[in-house]
Amino acid sequence: MKRLGSQSLEFETPINIVSAASIVGPKEANGPLAKHFDRCLEDEFWNEKTWEKAESKIIKETTNTSIAKSGLPANKIDYCFAGDLLNQCISSSFGLREIGIPYFGIFGACSTFGEALQLGSIFIESGAAENVVASVSSHFCSAEKQFRFPLELGNQRPPTSQWTVTGAGSVVLSKNSFGPKITTITTGKVVDMGIKDVNNMGAAMAPAAIDTLITHFKDTGRSPSYYDGIFTGDLGYIGKEIVMENALLKGYNIKNNYNDCGVLIFDKEKQDTHSGGSGCACSATVFCGYLYKQLVKNQMKKILLIPTGALTNATTAQQGESIPGIAHAVSIEF
Amino acid sequence: MKRLGSQSLEFETPINIVSAASIVGPKEANGPLAKHFDRCLEDEFWNEKTWEKAESKIIKETTNTSIAKSGLPANKIDYCFAGDLLNQCISSSFGLREIGIPYFGIFGACSTFGEALQLGSIFIESGAAENVVASVSSHFCSAEKQFRFPLELGNQRPPTSQWTVTGAGSVVLSKNSFGPKITTITTGKVVDMGIKDVNNMGAAMAPAAIDTLITHFKDTGRSPSYYDGIFTGDLGYIGKEIVMENALLKGYNIKNNYNDCGVLIFDKEKQDTHSGGSGCACSATVFCGYLYKQLVKNQMKKILLIPTGALTNATTAQQGESIPGIAHAVSIEF
Repeated sequence: MKRLGSQSLEFETPINIVSAASIVGPKEANGPLAKHFDRCLEDEFWNEKTWEKAESKIIKETTNTSIAKSGLPANKIDYCFAGDLLNQCISSSFGLREIGIPYFGIFGACSTFGEALQLGSIFIESGAAENVVASVSSHFCSAEKQFRFPLELGNQRPPTSQWTVTGAGSVVLSKNSFGPKITTITTGKVVDMGIKDVNNMGAAMAPAAIDTLITHFKDTGRSPSYYDGIFTGDLGYIGKEIVMENALLKGYNIKNNYNDCGVLIFDKEKQDTHSGGSGCACSATVFCGYLYKQLVKNQMKKILLIPTGALTNATTAQQGESIPGIAHAVSIEF
Repeated sequence: MKRLGSQSLEFETPINIVSAASIVGPKEANGPLAKHFDRCLEDEFWNEKTWEKAESKIIKETTNTSIAKSGLPANKIDYCFAGDLLNQCISSSFGLREIGIPYFGIFGACSTFGEALQLGSIFIESGAAENVVASVSSHFCSAEKQFRFPLELGNQRPPTSQWTVTGAGSVVLSKNSFGPKITTITTGKVVDMGIKDVNNMGAAMAPAAIDTLITHFKDTGRSPSYYDGIFTGDLGYIGKEIVMENALLKGYNIKNNYNDCGVLIFDKEKQDTHSGGSGCACSATVFCGYLYKQLVKNQMKKILLIPTGALTNATTAQQGESIPGIAHAVSIEF
């Protein structure tokens, strides 16, 4: 592989996303992308007793689906990369404890899907692996309970807040196979611009997204028009505006081909999510459900996916800390 | 690199651990390995207002120390891998938010140091990086508060319980440089034998350690005597016994050259830690402080380090779940 600039890599081996799977919850099932997901659940529990167990079941079944779709026997998958938002990443480690594949737990908050694609690509390019599976999840109810208030309390949500996507996305990456290819990656740095409003994650993560986006253009020498679509992970309406404006100030006009997965997944008028969707599953389900199929159907040929994460929690907020963000960019072409 | 068996890799490029740094808390400073650490703190706060902020400061300063010792300017470090035990890995992301290096957050519970060494090695072998830094931390007070009871409550601890090490370990890995070399790695699977006692993590993690250890021997064709020392991460006295007995049952006698970092770090008679030390910093500080120097001084030539982790939390325990474990093995030779 070739290093580009300070933060990017270009792959020489075709790293194919041979399969992608997504399972979502009932709210996502009422959104504009519903028809693209492999499975839409009728409720948030899926016959489990707790939201955490339901989230584990979702990531497990999504991972099984992506492996089944790949046509590879599970024992041909060399490594599993997985993560989620729950404390100690329990939905991944419990959901995937029976998978029987060498396992790397990762945490990049809502950017975890980008991190998983990057690590998986490097493993394949390097020859460390022939095939890897990468999976992430999030769940509205388990996330609200853990990060904000018990749902039963019925708290009001401020207009800047976002709605954590219930669901999981999973891909199988293989060497010299078929399917859309990961061609370059730009790994983000932690960026903290001092924003402290835990109900405005879009604004908190936007500086990291801009940093990674601009670095990607500089490292690769590409302009925004190289891509049919540029998609950040879960900045929502507010963060999306900040990214567009700031990219333009830095000389990159992305207004014509940029959107955010948190904007795409819910209907602004009919679904009351305020500033849009969020969570690891936001970029993962929008990619595995919608964007992957757009690539396969040749509706888009080149996309840049930039999952975004806020590396924060309730304790740091209570201790007066600001919110560090991170974003990892992955070019996918077909 | 060369794949060995189902879970191991052998590196062709010398992947050197060019520097190692460790900072520990006051209890570790009274233990038998005190003289090997770079810095021993006088109290658990280090002039910070909270334990979480103290832990962030510890991982930050330890990382700065390992980079300074490596002789490399920070802008020559291509990637940072870091993780810890706190919810959403906040001690790493807050401690390292100003480091300005492309950042991968990882979570393997107390096995995180092993995961970091493995990912870093593959990045270097593959050419994705020339130099990487890998850091982990844990803190007795922040861990007790989060996983068990507030310290102020003065709860009794059962005899099987372990003491989370306060501290951080950090290494810089480089290609074709100087210092001890990472030669092979064996990546663990999640192993859950149904143990539910959250006060007996050693027993819960031992099956994963045994699985990775035996797999390492099978994949590499090595016998226990290949190594001058085999060190698990934080099984403590109880887990150590389980590993020794079960390895013997499977035909591998490790009694003469095996120990556990959780057994080494505290004095059994004089320090009241019950079953020994634990936490991400247990294997990381014992390696970065003690074992690394043993290798450099030629007191040992070949070691196998197997950091061990329990992928659990308070919520899963309350929901009646058992404790999944994981262990990653790294051969280091000089």
